[in-house]
Amino acid sequence: MVDIIEAKRNGRALSEEEIRFFVQGYVDGSIPDYQASAFAMAVYFRGMDAKETAILTDAMMHSGETIDLSAIEGIKVDKHSTGGVGDKTSLVVGPLVSACGAKVAKMSGRGLGHTGGTLDKMESVPGMSISRTKEQFIQQVNDIGISIIGQTGSIVPADKKLYALRDVTGTVESIPLIASSIMSKKLAAGSDAILLDVKFGSGAFMKTLEDATTLAKAMVEIGDHLGRDTRAILTDMDQPLGLAVGNALEVKEAVMTLQGKGPKDLVELVKKAGGIMLQQAKIVDSVEEGEKRILAAIEDGSGFQKLLALFKAQGGDVSYLEDIDKFPLASHIVPILATEEGYVRRIDSLAIGLAAMKLGAGRATMKDVIDMSAGIQLRKKVGDKVQKGDVLCYCHTNKEGVKEVFQEALDAFVLSEDPIEVAPIVHAYIH
Amino acid sequence: MVDIIEAKRNGRALSEEEIRFFVQGYVDGSIPDYQASAFAMAVYFRGMDAKETAILTDAMMHSGETIDLSAIEGIKVDKHSTGGVGDKTSLVVGPLVSACGAKVAKMSGRGLGHTGGTLDKMESVPGMSISRTKEQFIQQVNDIGISIIGQTGSIVPADKKLYALRDVTGTVESIPLIASSIMSKKLAAGSDAILLDVKFGSGAFMKTLEDATTLAKAMVEIGDHLGRDTRAILTDMDQPLGLAVGNALEVKEAVMTLQGKGPKDLVELVKKAGGIMLQQAKIVDSVEEGEKRILAAIEDGSGFQKLLALFKAQGGDVSYLEDIDKFPLASHIVPILATEEGYVRRIDSLAIGLAAMKLGAGRATMKDVIDMSAGIQLRKKVGDKVQKGDVLCYCHTNKEGVKEVFQEALDAFVLSEDPIEVAPIVHAYIH
Repeated sequence: MVDIIEAKRNGRALSEEEIRFFVQGYVDGSIPDYQASAFAMAVYFRGMDAKETAILTDAMMHSGETIDLSAIEGIKVDKHSTGGVGDKTSLVVGPLVSACGAKVAKMSGRGLGHTGGTLDKMESVPGMSISRTKEQFIQQVNDIGISIIGQTGSIVPADKKLYALRDVTGTVESIPLIASSIMSKKLAAGSDAILLDVKFGSGAFMKTLEDATTLAKAMVEIGDHLGRDTRAILTDMDQPLGLAVGNALEVKEAVMTLQGKGPKDLVELVKKAGGIMLQQAKIVDSVEEGEKRILAAIEDGSGFQKLLALFKAQGGDVSYLEDIDKFPLASHIVPILATEEGYVRRIDSLAIGLAAMKLGAGRATMKDVIDMSAGIQLRKKVGDKVQKGDVLCYCHTNKEGVKEVFQEALDAFVLSEDPIEVAPIVHAYIH
Repeated sequence: MVDIIEAKRNGRALSEEEIRFFVQGYVDGSIPDYQASAFAMAVYFRGMDAKETAILTDAMMHSGETIDLSAIEGIKVDKHSTGGVGDKTSLVVGPLVSACGAKVAKMSGRGLGHTGGTLDKMESVPGMSISRTKEQFIQQVNDIGISIIGQTGSIVPADKKLYALRDVTGTVESIPLIASSIMSKKLAAGSDAILLDVKFGSGAFMKTLEDATTLAKAMVEIGDHLGRDTRAILTDMDQPLGLAVGNALEVKEAVMTLQGKGPKDLVELVKKAGGIMLQQAKIVDSVEEGEKRILAAIEDGSGFQKLLALFKAQGGDVSYLEDIDKFPLASHIVPILATEEGYVRRIDSLAIGLAAMKLGAGRATMKDVIDMSAGIQLRKKVGDKVQKGDVLCYCHTNKEGVKEVFQEALDAFVLSEDPIEVAPIVHAYIH
């Protein structure tokens, strides 16, 4: 292992044998943490080429269980977001592409810190379960075309161990390590085609478009190397996605979006992502055609029907989806008022995400319990004109004494004297 | 600690508080190995400036016991070699500078791998002890002006722990880490003035003159920052030093050198190092004057008398030094013959060091037991003319079945058709 560390430290590309030796040894404990962390730091400085990154991903993917979805007929498509604020895309685009004939057999995650997780959002519907055996999972996708469940504990143990180590050794911010971490899990989850939604800006893991592009390209290259149709879109996280941040609030927004009443940026993202996924599923020939099908599936209600089927199949009380006013509201709904006039230049996603977390919508640590009703409902988005005293957003919370959080929500809104041109949500498409 | 790792990773100079936090935390166990190794790798890539390196050294030095030599009158001078093959300099220059009035209160080390250690060499004289209490040590230096003992276990625990970690995480070859490792031990040992003998070439830790110069300058700068007179010479390790490699063989050579019959390169090195040390001890005004005093102390036998006093004070049977033929010879003394004619261009020190180790003179691991009589006695040095069949060296060993080692010793000699100009042993003096 010392030779491997030194080789990488000196900038040499590692062989397949060396990379597999590292991953296997680290998982079985024969390579100690202190060698793995030195190795990760050497990778941070020296990088890995596309071939090395693909081998690392493949080795990590095979460090544990891989899901065999071949018992599901048709092309299985998966979408992965690098994590944003207000990102309920999966709950909208999943049912839509499924309604159009693609198979969605998705494993999703929970939220931590300022980012939310699809599983938590789903659980805001009473009765909804995200635990299914592999057989139930496959059966459900064959029956209704969609299932979204929690990731099994036995998937990619190498990533679990390595990520925990990187988190405490200053070695998180390495493109090949991030790319292989994400892709090993997506590939192990077994779908035929993967669409990556790589976010950039405040509140995203990648702060700049440049870094996000590099990461997206690295992940698409991994997919290419390992023979899995992988594409990526780069989307703007310089404001929260849509208007709702918080679990039940976001489910309600997903329902409204499937009913044709969604916010513009979310609809745009869903259309683009769904269009690509339908092409990946070979249901349409072009992305443009796919986009039309997605809009049609909103229009005719088939996407919403698929959402109902998904929740019903997993035990959810769909009366909440049929009448979203059934979701209990938080005891305090506090309007945050503009203190000056102007145009909204940006809404700091990180600040909004953290504020929502403090209101009860998220976890600071994995042990925290989420308040499903808590969160932030935006009233203004980037580009909107604001008068002094206008409601910028509402803070929903059951907590007392969180006045400083209201201030943080207010401070997240950055106003400009001049009108603002709004950038499109989807910045680029890499395939 | 993650912040400190990331700061260094991003190329920021660390504050005194951060560096001391790291050293203290690593020694007390609150900072785990995996963070220390990631930190060391970040330092490998980003380096440390002179101030950071001095603070790191000071923090390491104060991680354990420091030796207070103030009870010894006069200026205490110490010499440290970065480790070579055939390097018995301390056993010659120590008695000489002591004979000229400097105080030598030296803690030395053992050999490992292809490099020998002064303590092992001393123990080839029956009865010689390298263990002394601090009080005995100080008393002896006050009585006879010199003592050389083993390093106490409680000196610089931070270095012990960090070096062991660096050794297995590919983070040895970092100038600030090497410099602080060496200097923290030298400074903790308490002498007022330190002369560093930084070797370069095959068989030395630093393979190139450039690297050796960088290391030497870094160490001298540490001494400057911490107010201790520190100087360095850069010496050639492209052939073993002197003619003898192996413990008793080297002690015999040290005796002969003190009796005026030493090999040219060793005498040259001893003269230069001793001259500098006498100036550091303020016994002479110039290095040139110091060199004359050193040569005089060889000539008049006072250096040899001091060697006898040193061994006698520490229990050694000095009859071996008075009559070096008393040292038992190895059972096999095998001449290695030249297979072609030419001029010796170089003698691979690393190869000779490893061959001597395999003959029994050294340790592959710290648990191995040394055969004091084993080693290699050179007959030819760089520049010498060689006829086919001439003895290049003698292999001394008590082992059977080590024929391949004889071949390795032969292969260490690189001949040239053309005459060779011999470079001076001391290449530069940094102060």
